[in-house]
Amino acid sequence: MVDRVGVGMIGCGTVGSEVARILSDRRSAIADGAGVDLKLVRVAVRDVSRQRDVPLDSSVFCDDPQLVVEDPDVSVVVEVMGGVDIAARWVRAALDNGKAVVTANKELIASRGPDLHLRAASAGVDLLFEAAVGGGIPIIRPIAESLAGEEIERVTGIVNGTTNYILTRMAEEGADFAEVLKDAQRLGFAEADPTADIAGHDAGAKAAILATLAFGTRVSTEDVSIEGITDIEARDIEVAGELGFVVKLLAIAEKIDDGVAVRVHPTLLPTTHPLASVRLSYNAVFVEGKYAGEMMFYGPGAGGGPTAMAVVGDVIDASLNLRQHARGPLAPTESTVPIVPLVELSSQYYLRLRVDDRPGVLGEVAAVFGECNVSIKSLVQRGREREAELVLILHRAREIDVAEALQVLDGLDSVEAVMSSIRVLGDEDG
Amino acid sequence: MVDRVGVGMIGCGTVGSEVARILSDRRSAIADGAGVDLKLVRVAVRDVSRQRDVPLDSSVFCDDPQLVVEDPDVSVVVEVMGGVDIAARWVRAALDNGKAVVTANKELIASRGPDLHLRAASAGVDLLFEAAVGGGIPIIRPIAESLAGEEIERVTGIVNGTTNYILTRMAEEGADFAEVLKDAQRLGFAEADPTADIAGHDAGAKAAILATLAFGTRVSTEDVSIEGITDIEARDIEVAGELGFVVKLLAIAEKIDDGVAVRVHPTLLPTTHPLASVRLSYNAVFVEGKYAGEMMFYGPGAGGGPTAMAVVGDVIDASLNLRQHARGPLAPTESTVPIVPLVELSSQYYLRLRVDDRPGVLGEVAAVFGECNVSIKSLVQRGREREAELVLILHRAREIDVAEALQVLDGLDSVEAVMSSIRVLGDEDG
Repeated sequence: MVDRVGVGMIGCGTVGSEVARILSDRRSAIADGAGVDLKLVRVAVRDVSRQRDVPLDSSVFCDDPQLVVEDPDVSVVVEVMGGVDIAARWVRAALDNGKAVVTANKELIASRGPDLHLRAASAGVDLLFEAAVGGGIPIIRPIAESLAGEEIERVTGIVNGTTNYILTRMAEEGADFAEVLKDAQRLGFAEADPTADIAGHDAGAKAAILATLAFGTRVSTEDVSIEGITDIEARDIEVAGELGFVVKLLAIAEKIDDGVAVRVHPTLLPTTHPLASVRLSYNAVFVEGKYAGEMMFYGPGAGGGPTAMAVVGDVIDASLNLRQHARGPLAPTESTVPIVPLVELSSQYYLRLRVDDRPGVLGEVAAVFGECNVSIKSLVQRGREREAELVLILHRAREIDVAEALQVLDGLDSVEAVMSSIRVLGDEDG
Repeated sequence: MVDRVGVGMIGCGTVGSEVARILSDRRSAIADGAGVDLKLVRVAVRDVSRQRDVPLDSSVFCDDPQLVVEDPDVSVVVEVMGGVDIAARWVRAALDNGKAVVTANKELIASRGPDLHLRAASAGVDLLFEAAVGGGIPIIRPIAESLAGEEIERVTGIVNGTTNYILTRMAEEGADFAEVLKDAQRLGFAEADPTADIAGHDAGAKAAILATLAFGTRVSTEDVSIEGITDIEARDIEVAGELGFVVKLLAIAEKIDDGVAVRVHPTLLPTTHPLASVRLSYNAVFVEGKYAGEMMFYGPGAGGGPTAMAVVGDVIDASLNLRQHARGPLAPTESTVPIVPLVELSSQYYLRLRVDDRPGVLGEVAAVFGECNVSIKSLVQRGREREAELVLILHRAREIDVAEALQVLDGLDSVEAVMSSIRVLGDEDG
């Protein structure tokens, strides 16, 4: 029994074009394998007159998303237009009209998830977003369904391909941030305006989604403490390497007592950690659970092909559910456990200071940490003409204590500058 | 809305006890998160009088699986008794009685899958088996659902924890197979009778399941070419390491023209391959797809906790579907594409020969390969007293041509012995 399912799409850029291509190329394979005959029947675009390299009849295109969300021949709506407010408007309209919705829009899910999930539930249809985190890598469904019985303790992810690409090339070529960013833009690995990526906002939205799924509680982008990679210097990556670490931009969501802490920041990760070998624009999500221990999902984190493939998987799933008048297990959560802000956490730190190269300075610096209840795990001093570079790894300490120590250090005459302070994910983590 | 769902279980060994524990520990969390209140109401065991460390009232136990599969209070049956024939009998009975079934039994699915899937489909219930491959790692659902739109080209997995544990320790300690096996048995990483693991049968059943899912065609254990690790010597692992390879027991399922080839054999894998860093009893499945490229799923491949966690995830999924009178997308496949036997494939090979250390021998050996249409990619000769050790990496060549060359070599006076021949997964693979 093969059911014909009409698919509508809003947006037809990089991802949308690939969705159209896969639905066309794989139509009979999907019909044979899954028992649903998916046909893209209506696509809303800004400019219908533009030539597009997609296997679609021009009659399919229209310039009004309303025609898609109201088309009686459309059962599943794919939203790949991007943005938040307008996308939310059409996704709401589609759900309210009883259409299942598939989206790749992480900002939309991270900021409007609860409202949209409620609408999907009351309409009895699916709202699926496998492509919103990790591009083509199955992550949402494994966490929400396969690990539904697990007590997840922490989720740690490399979820932004652009920053991982930049950090990998900085590490492997010893190159500077600005130089690699420019090259990444030229090669298409970074946007013309790279702010959302390098400042960590993209990873922040994905962290919010992962935390929501892993801990069954509402987490939105505003709940995430975010720090980007713009301050990372080639020298830090070099020194970290000598100490057995790589520098990665990590999204970390973890249970802290009765709350949840969610953050994105550059992190020193031991080279032996499974996430350390994730290179270039690849993504990976590392899950620690009480029963299963450590698991990791790895693959291409972005790109039209991978993202579109994940969208098509969701379209198939939604279609199979529609046929049975059922919906999948992705559900709205009413629960809101407290969000623990970064400042209340404890962390290990890597610090790099420029200090005067004279007797007594080391003692002064050490005394500051002692006074602030921060203890030093390791310390390396290197002379560089009249100055010395001091690299410290701190034991796990309260964020506020480290912040205080850094402030006091900054005021010392013998400390030229605190060059860098980067958190460390190490053996002292829970 | 929280529905009470009665769960029955057949078997209560390592995995079953953990299932009981998770269902008890996580009962309210699962009810809150997924909206189903799972209660284990009947468990069939061989010996009801045995003391068990499980959070279950003794009245729950019985010694007749029929009482489980016929219990009107049971909606989902968990099969963790193992074996094939008897397990198949009770799974059939449960499905025919309209109960959803969750199993961790890879042999059962690999050998009786088609019949059981048909019964599940006609009863309108789920037959789920996430725990059958990769223990706690979500693999089945990601491949069957998240990648439903993908055109999978190859699946390569480290799917047996015992052999990976043995190979890892052989590599890291330079120890011999027999010695490590004995220690693994003492530590509980290998069974008292380790045959199913070290001879590759366990990996073979998992390879059949992966191939069935990835290519939507019926593949059973008998279709899999299987070679174990018993002939791997410490010296091979050492030499492979010098050449930039690790030795892993791989399950490989790939599309070959219009057919599918499925095999399990020891393999030299470049140290840069994502699977190369999978150590000890961890498992990982590497998927190559046309649209998304390379993906990997990594985690603990066995053990009571991880396996039970996967079983509970399936129980939740089946319960949610039952509530909607629906079933998930795992479906029987009618398709049977040709199975391409190993002998018809082409492979790269690593060979280690013991030869006489005198002029002309190298020429003789090279001539044999030339006559058999096999070309040599690299060759290292090391003198060892009057004998020499010859290590060759061959270019990709037809299996039958390599086999012929090995047979001819074996008959040469100057070749003392063909010590090892191991396939290489390298840059010449499609």
